[in-house]
Amino acid sequence: MCGIFGVSGVPDAARITFHGLYALQHRGQESAGIASVDGAGIARLHRGMGLVSETFSEAALSSLAGDVAVGHTRYSTMGSTIIANAQPCFANTRVGPLTLAHNGNLTNATVLKAKLVEKGAIFTSSTDSEVIVHLIAHSTASTIELQIRDALEHLEGAYSLIITVGRSMFAVVDGRGFRPLAIGRLADGIVAASETCALDLVGATLERELMPGEFIRIDDGRITNLAPLGSRPVSRCVFELVYFARPDSNVFGESVDRVRREIGRVLAQEHPAPGAEVVFSVPDSSNAMALGFSQESGIELEYGLIRNHYVGRTFINPTQALRIAKVRIKFNPVREVIEGRSVVVVDDSLVRGNTSKGLVQLIRAAGAREVHLRLGSPPITGPCHYGIDTPAASELIASTHSLEEIRDFLGVESLGYLSLDGMLRAGRHGNTFCHACFSGQYPTPTHADLVQLRHAAPLIESTV
Amino acid sequence: MCGIFGVSGVPDAARITFHGLYALQHRGQESAGIASVDGAGIARLHRGMGLVSETFSEAALSSLAGDVAVGHTRYSTMGSTIIANAQPCFANTRVGPLTLAHNGNLTNATVLKAKLVEKGAIFTSSTDSEVIVHLIAHSTASTIELQIRDALEHLEGAYSLIITVGRSMFAVVDGRGFRPLAIGRLADGIVAASETCALDLVGATLERELMPGEFIRIDDGRITNLAPLGSRPVSRCVFELVYFARPDSNVFGESVDRVRREIGRVLAQEHPAPGAEVVFSVPDSSNAMALGFSQESGIELEYGLIRNHYVGRTFINPTQALRIAKVRIKFNPVREVIEGRSVVVVDDSLVRGNTSKGLVQLIRAAGAREVHLRLGSPPITGPCHYGIDTPAASELIASTHSLEEIRDFLGVESLGYLSLDGMLRAGRHGNTFCHACFSGQYPTPTHADLVQLRHAAPLIESTV
Amino acid sequence: MCGIFGVSGVPDAARITFHGLYALQHRGQESAGIASVDGAGIARLHRGMGLVSETFSEAALSSLAGDVAVGHTRYSTMGSTIIANAQPCFANTRVGPLTLAHNGNLTNATVLKAKLVEKGAIFTSSTDSEVIVHLIAHSTASTIELQIRDALEHLEGAYSLIITVGRSMFAVVDGRGFRPLAIGRLADGIVAASETCALDLVGATLERELMPGEFIRIDDGRITNLAPLGSRPVSRCVFELVYFARPDSNVFGESVDRVRREIGRVLAQEHPAPGAEVVFSVPDSSNAMALGFSQESGIELEYGLIRNHYVGRTFINPTQALRIAKVRIKFNPVREVIEGRSVVVVDDSLVRGNTSKGLVQLIRAAGAREVHLRLGSPPITGPCHYGIDTPAASELIASTHSLEEIRDFLGVESLGYLSLDGMLRAGRHGNTFCHACFSGQYPTPTHADLVQLRHAAPLIESTV
Amino acid sequence: MCGIFGVSGVPDAARITFHGLYALQHRGQESAGIASVDGAGIARLHRGMGLVSETFSEAALSSLAGDVAVGHTRYSTMGSTIIANAQPCFANTRVGPLTLAHNGNLTNATVLKAKLVEKGAIFTSSTDSEVIVHLIAHSTASTIELQIRDALEHLEGAYSLIITVGRSMFAVVDGRGFRPLAIGRLADGIVAASETCALDLVGATLERELMPGEFIRIDDGRITNLAPLGSRPVSRCVFELVYFARPDSNVFGESVDRVRREIGRVLAQEHPAPGAEVVFSVPDSSNAMALGFSQESGIELEYGLIRNHYVGRTFINPTQALRIAKVRIKFNPVREVIEGRSVVVVDDSLVRGNTSKGLVQLIRAAGAREVHLRLGSPPITGPCHYGIDTPAASELIASTHSLEEIRDFLGVESLGYLSLDGMLRAGRHGNTFCHACFSGQYPTPTHADLVQLRHAAPLIESTV
Repeated sequence: MCGIFGVSGVPDAARITFHGLYALQHRGQESAGIASVDGAGIARLHRGMGLVSETFSEAALSSLAGDVAVGHTRYSTMGSTIIANAQPCFANTRVGPLTLAHNGNLTNATVLKAKLVEKGAIFTSSTDSEVIVHLIAHSTASTIELQIRDALEHLEGAYSLIITVGRSMFAVVDGRGFRPLAIGRLADGIVAASETCALDLVGATLERELMPGEFIRIDDGRITNLAPLGSRPVSRCVFELVYFARPDSNVFGESVDRVRREIGRVLAQEHPAPGAEVVFSVPDSSNAMALGFSQESGIELEYGLIRNHYVGRTFINPTQALRIAKVRIKFNPVREVIEGRSVVVVDDSLVRGNTSKGLVQLIRAAGAREVHLRLGSPPITGPCHYGIDTPAASELIASTHSLEEIRDFLGVESLGYLSLDGMLRAGRHGNTFCHACFSGQYPTPTHADLVQLRHAAPLIESTV
Repeated sequence: MCGIFGVSGVPDAARITFHGLYALQHRGQESAGIASVDGAGIARLHRGMGLVSETFSEAALSSLAGDVAVGHTRYSTMGSTIIANAQPCFANTRVGPLTLAHNGNLTNATVLKAKLVEKGAIFTSSTDSEVIVHLIAHSTASTIELQIRDALEHLEGAYSLIITVGRSMFAVVDGRGFRPLAIGRLADGIVAASETCALDLVGATLERELMPGEFIRIDDGRITNLAPLGSRPVSRCVFELVYFARPDSNVFGESVDRVRREIGRVLAQEHPAPGAEVVFSVPDSSNAMALGFSQESGIELEYGLIRNHYVGRTFINPTQALRIAKVRIKFNPVREVIEGRSVVVVDDSLVRGNTSKGLVQLIRAAGAREVHLRLGSPPITGPCHYGIDTPAASELIASTHSLEEIRDFLGVESLGYLSLDGMLRAGRHGNTFCHACFSGQYPTPTHADLVQLRHAAPLIESTV
Repeated sequence: MCGIFGVSGVPDAARITFHGLYALQHRGQESAGIASVDGAGIARLHRGMGLVSETFSEAALSSLAGDVAVGHTRYSTMGSTIIANAQPCFANTRVGPLTLAHNGNLTNATVLKAKLVEKGAIFTSSTDSEVIVHLIAHSTASTIELQIRDALEHLEGAYSLIITVGRSMFAVVDGRGFRPLAIGRLADGIVAASETCALDLVGATLERELMPGEFIRIDDGRITNLAPLGSRPVSRCVFELVYFARPDSNVFGESVDRVRREIGRVLAQEHPAPGAEVVFSVPDSSNAMALGFSQESGIELEYGLIRNHYVGRTFINPTQALRIAKVRIKFNPVREVIEGRSVVVVDDSLVRGNTSKGLVQLIRAAGAREVHLRLGSPPITGPCHYGIDTPAASELIASTHSLEEIRDFLGVESLGYLSLDGMLRAGRHGNTFCHACFSGQYPTPTHADLVQLRHAAPLIESTV
Repeated sequence: MCGIFGVSGVPDAARITFHGLYALQHRGQESAGIASVDGAGIARLHRGMGLVSETFSEAALSSLAGDVAVGHTRYSTMGSTIIANAQPCFANTRVGPLTLAHNGNLTNATVLKAKLVEKGAIFTSSTDSEVIVHLIAHSTASTIELQIRDALEHLEGAYSLIITVGRSMFAVVDGRGFRPLAIGRLADGIVAASETCALDLVGATLERELMPGEFIRIDDGRITNLAPLGSRPVSRCVFELVYFARPDSNVFGESVDRVRREIGRVLAQEHPAPGAEVVFSVPDSSNAMALGFSQESGIELEYGLIRNHYVGRTFINPTQALRIAKVRIKFNPVREVIEGRSVVVVDDSLVRGNTSKGLVQLIRAAGAREVHLRLGSPPITGPCHYGIDTPAASELIASTHSLEEIRDFLGVESLGYLSLDGMLRAGRHGNTFCHACFSGQYPTPTHADLVQLRHAAPLIESTV
């Protein structure tokens, strides 16, 4: 998953973008980057590995002059963890410097890349996003707008894009609308962001979210609506609401906080826990779900798990002898809340199951009499091809084990998954959601091309 | 404030200490350090600026051999932000290498330091803790135990200490017992920690908390009880329970989570908010207080503020023109929860008042109809001399303004401070608490010596 | 100017390349890089800013597996000082990973680049060398050899190249032979290097230098001679012998040391200094010239200037008040040698004249009675378009001032430039040398295309 | 060995010190540091590992305010390679901040340290220099001058010191005068430096060198002569002239360049090489010796070895299979000069013999018919206890092998060492030189105390 942010027509656009990315940090912590364009059309770029706050210094931001900027936070789905894969991508094209930030995942990138390499294109990253840049550069269409449209017509899969060419900015969402992209107004300019919480942070007011297939051009803070992309059945990613987006964002027209509380309520209806004395969340993404569960069921809400927010990215091995569970480094149970009680634990989802198993053990060790696990989404049975970093089916516990086996593996008295129908109802956009990872109904053709071709053989660059 | 942690009699003690410090990170983020002692009595030390996870690499931990270790996380109260002030302190003394980790603040450090300098002692840091090391090294007592006792008899103020000399470890809490220090068992050894959450993380079981004046020696994981320090009236820091400690810790025999929920209940009794429709906390330290308030008052709990946990330590100036409030970078309101409503906001305390004022503005901008602020502690009217980094009285809003002036400054419909009596009741140890910063009743003599003497003129070292 | 080095058919080729680059460090200190190719044809790359010894750690070298490698040290002539411009260049092409190291300068790069951008090519650096990579990738010829030949046919200017495609290595020198490239044998493999001193360091034995237009292929340490490039009038760079190459190298079949001593002798014949008592060089590049001058003239050689070899790259401003001349940081006169004497100072060349002026002032301040400056090359009146970083004509003192004006500016009693004829005689290859910067006779067509086109507008990347 | 530099009474003293240290870099490359004192007597310090140019940035220098400064470049003789050992040492004493830079080596440091530790002194480094700081701080004398004198009276061995206490600066040389210390004038102030080349670089004029036992005080650029230290037989280190100092310095009243040329002449008299055709030096320290040898013998001087000045400090292992001699990385022979000839190679000294052996092999491989090695100093048979980092006697080839065995080991046709008498004659101060490492006549008592005591057990600090 990734976060994207753009500004047009506001002085010091890179600095605004920095703060916008800051609010989108949860969408990607691997790398961050900002490109800016000044009044003369000169583009400048700064990218780095790690958090936004680590990547940018005052000096770096000050060097990014201009009133147009585009930024990106990356969590790798395709391509390795190297600086060459950090975005925005950039290119000097015949119509001027181009920069591009991409959220989503193309499903035909490998085929497109092979064709481009055949024509002499030189790739410097292993991302699918660079394919889009090459397609635009290779298009022989007469205007940059047509070049971009030409490129987009070749793409399959998920893409919300912010592109600058010279001083013009383009924003577009693929025809199925997998990923969100919101447009806001700030002073005399325009701001675009993956989530509305980023508009809030920079003080912009929400104008609207882009519709699936919507394609706009922004020049000096003025929007021109371009003809939309070819229409496809809408398939919004329901996981944005369940897990990915921040609760203070509005996504696909819905308050994420509201949807999650509603999920908690539906979960309490579908899987009540009659004898339980207390309900708590696995913080922070399921906080609202636990609250909804408590409100619906009448079971008292408490804070049973404390999360350590200082977790760094270099993991130090605890001594084997002591078997400090990895999960204990991140979460600590509150014995006062748990001891001697029958507890309901609400989490948003279950992927491999190992973290949850560790958590249950911690909770039991803190004295819980009974543990009832409630999950705010259905069993995940397949990978996401549209930008979320889920593992292969073989590693998904719900793909290989029955409900009873999972309950047994986790060691809980009861286990309740939200139903697909319940999730779609809570999300309020039932038939327009993509729920492929739960239902196996993938909205795009199959993906034989995800196999790496020989041409993509790795050229590993490890610059200091 | 600082966090301290020690291990004796457990292999790979530095690695255990690393994880222990990790759980104590909230007590100090300025610097971190670990000293270890191996079987031959050789001590090794690694210290650095920043978080525990940033300071220690696998290589650094691997170099810290031995089954004895002591660690420290520092938040400066006295002394500047430089590596020379990072702890543990260390010295080669005539009885072998000595390392020392200190939580608290001495109130006669400047006088002691001047006397030591007069005698030829050379100080390399500007901390009060180094004074203790020199006092021990200068003592002519016949055993190391007596040397340490000799040194402690000179100290006034707050100190919980873990000291190693050769392979022996000593743990002690000053006679008034300002700061906590818990002792646990792990495998065949002993672990000491500022808070029990650190014992939990490393998998140790709580043995007991040290009493005020208690002084113990630990050799190869075996505890020897030494004669206690001279008795003083007990004055436990109530702020440890209100604000500083983690909710999953037990401090002074109390569950921090329980005390905070109780504070919320008492607050609801003392300052109800009859017409309010929703109550939420300023996350995360007042979460339990808001929950208690909701439980007592029946007003619905919600999550009205989302905290960004990716805040780095290099602050980038937002553009002035846009006036992005600093507070907005850390917190974002959830409009869904707030809009059109009368809300109760629960925070743990009010220091200068600026952050709260900014928060109230954010909440109003998100559409709140009324804002009622409730504070889980009494007005802070004086500085702490015992280790908490409160500003001078002149910067404390409650020291210079009336209640009505504060309410007006913050721009809230109503403002309710917890009463001193209510706080002490919730903490359950009423007459043994230090509440000097609220009541002005300082348990130690006055502090004219806090004025910097000429001899302490700063020698600033800025090593790369 | 740059240094290039290649290995084929020797295990641990990157490590050999590291040592080879080490010997070529004088040809470029801005950046360094090595690409290696392993047995499976996987290419790996490591590049960095700064010296070879700073850029490569044991870890970096260990990661560069394989028995084929190519390396580069860069001193910028075209393109800015950024990591994106460090070489080797690389690309994933349809026939596998390609890496390329280039010494020289193309004179039609801008025109070629514009054409390639028109076709959709995306450039990621501002170097002329990347043009060659794109030309190869875009060629539709049937074999990689023909693709490379196809690309080379488009190039004008100076290029000595080492290229790898898959596991094959290619080495080629442009038809005029501006820059050297030597081939040696090492164990069962082949080594290529800009200068023979690099063959010496790795213990290889010189096989031969490539002739102008020579094009070879090396597979697993076996050389195949390919058809030479189209023939052009030979124009070897005479400055390689005068200034650039190391004295322990053989370049264009000549011992650099011998040529420089000979230059000193000719200089003594052309510009004797009858009354002078001592001759010394500006170390180290003119050492051999001063020796030759002494041998021919009979004037005693001494060491009158000591050079500080610890000069780092971050220049710290001396206080203005003290006016520490920049030149004094690098050179200090030996008063014992100079005081009261009439001295001959031998330097290799005079560019802007400022450094020499400063040196003369230092020498006078050390007590010289008379200063006679002798230069081992003719007046430089024009820029080099073939890879040496000389400034524009307007900054060249000999382009704008008469001999007498220069003598006056420098403040010397006499000034003697080597004649063009003398230089060519000392170099022994008179009519095959390029001496454009002295004579204005440029061997390639004019260079209107050196003007930067709009498409080349800079995209400045400053990755941490 | 170390370099020391001081400034009093010149604005921006730290910047001048930076440039002074730059000229003293050859005396120590392990660490560098500068302390400055401003008008209010506040001292500031910056130290780092590595070269002067690497340790100091503009920002670091700008922070070192004041018109008094002292600097140090360190090459370890006693104490490990850690930042805690970098100098200047510093301490806050009862008379104000003290900083100290030391060149030399104490021979009774261990005994003094043990006594100080017994009294409660806390050492933070493993250097002998810190002992001096503690002695000063512990002295109960009535003035700072008397405190320093008191401390110096306890010292045995070699010390040239620059000390600041408050705004006063003191400079002193031990009674035997092992190490040089020169005083110069700059603007309205005073500059002190280990060698005159540092005075030259900053534009100061030499006032005089301090005599053995001389002790001066400098306040605001005005010198006060203090009573000299107790008199001892003078023993100037002859190796300063032979090897250590820069040729452009005057040391002990002699031009280093002149002494070295004279050494070359004497060497040619003592050990002519009748049939030899060419003489060359091992650059750069023996350049002047080879010149003198050539002048005296009439054998033609050439440059037979080229030194690579880009040698970094991280040594990368060449592949074993290729056996790239370590020496080849630093030196390359010039075949043109050597091939087919009988050559005289002049080096300054022979320590272990390994480097010379490698050099001889390189020279033979370059085609030398005969190699005659001439050494500008007598056989080294014992370690230096006064600050030069010579190995133990067991590692000194001349201590364990006969002349013939050494000649055989090196593989040369003839080997000639300068005689002790010849060396002293060339140095012109015969009976006042220390030549202990050649003659075994150590001017101070024996050194049983050089054995490390238990109290000095290492506390290894590895701060990031």
